[in-house]
Amino acid sequence: MSGILEDFIEQLTILPGIGKKSASRIAFFILKLPKAKVEEFANSIITAKLNLKPCARCGNLTEGETCHICNDTRRDNSVVCVVEEPSDVIVVESTSEFKGVYHVIGGALSPLDGVGPDDINIASLEKRVADDGIKEIILATNPNTEGEATAAYLINLLKSYKVKITRIARGIPVGGFLEYADKTTLSKALENRTEIK
Amino acid sequence: MSGILEDFIEQLTILPGIGKKSASRIAFFILKLPKAKVEEFANSIITAKLNLKPCARCGNLTEGETCHICNDTRRDNSVVCVVEEPSDVIVVESTSEFKGVYHVIGGALSPLDGVGPDDINIASLEKRVADDGIKEIILATNPNTEGEATAAYLINLLKSYKVKITRIARGIPVGGFLEYADKTTLSKALENRTEIK
Repeated sequence: MSGILEDFIEQLTILPGIGKKSASRIAFFILKLPKAKVEEFANSIITAKLNLKPCARCGNLTEGETCHICNDTRRDNSVVCVVEEPSDVIVVESTSEFKGVYHVIGGALSPLDGVGPDDINIASLEKRVADDGIKEIILATNPNTEGEATAAYLINLLKSYKVKITRIARGIPVGGFLEYADKTTLSKALENRTEIK
Repeated sequence: MSGILEDFIEQLTILPGIGKKSASRIAFFILKLPKAKVEEFANSIITAKLNLKPCARCGNLTEGETCHICNDTRRDNSVVCVVEEPSDVIVVESTSEFKGVYHVIGGALSPLDGVGPDDINIASLEKRVADDGIKEIILATNPNTEGEATAAYLINLLKSYKVKITRIARGIPVGGFLEYADKTTLSKALENRTEIK
């Protein structure tokens, strides 16, 4: 194979979910595009990397000083949803249910990977709680070991402040089956059952 | 969502096999890479597009005038495997079985899509057959409607030349099940059965 082609396919395999076969398929697809389109594509990667940075207030990705959610005066600044990554903001926003604002901590505590409280944006969250008149913190870190550890750490850190702390519900996914749920999820679903009548 | 981020994710969805969710996952993955790595990645796309062009002889992608297969003096120039795309060359090469050379026609005949004989590299194949002392042409176009139509067209075009013409076998894939084979494939597998004893 040509060295340049080999390098190109190799570069594509670093992407998540892209194996050797998909990389090769994507490479040949790109090589068939018009030159202008390929340049537009490559430039969008550079542009995104150079212009997107963490929002000074919440840590979400933005091209400005603060993000479009923090800038939106219709959002309720007293309710803060804490998530691990900017991608989680997009997921929560897609529900159109949440009218508050966010705090992106940029990861989760993971002693095994050497990620401690100082490596993620926790100090800035505490500062917001101390200074910004926040009424509720919704902990929406992932319901896995690292996310739960992070939630537990935040509960301990923020318990002395006069702020309500909640955690997103863990239970059976809508459209799912009890049969396929693991024991821990099912226990949580029973424990957090809601009253109907 | 930030406009730049939205554009970036949108650009990624043009890739084959990449939907909205994968695009978003890839976008955030790229944004987490170091700046130098992102530039290297984007540059590899531009470099590949600017430097790879069809081999003057066989149509395979190459960064030189002729491709590394055409340049390889150990290859048998009298046997030519005709494939639709440069990606098919990689697939055939991966078997390490074929010691001849290739001719990449760059597509397949498809009247519905307006692809006629003049739109693919057929004239150059005929010229090679006429001038280069080729003994066998292996038709390895895809075994679908367009690929079969292209093979039929080539057989008709080349029949007056003193050259052996063969077609890759169609049959049950190795590791496959008769139960899952379609009727046409099974018919071909029976028709092209090989003698054991």
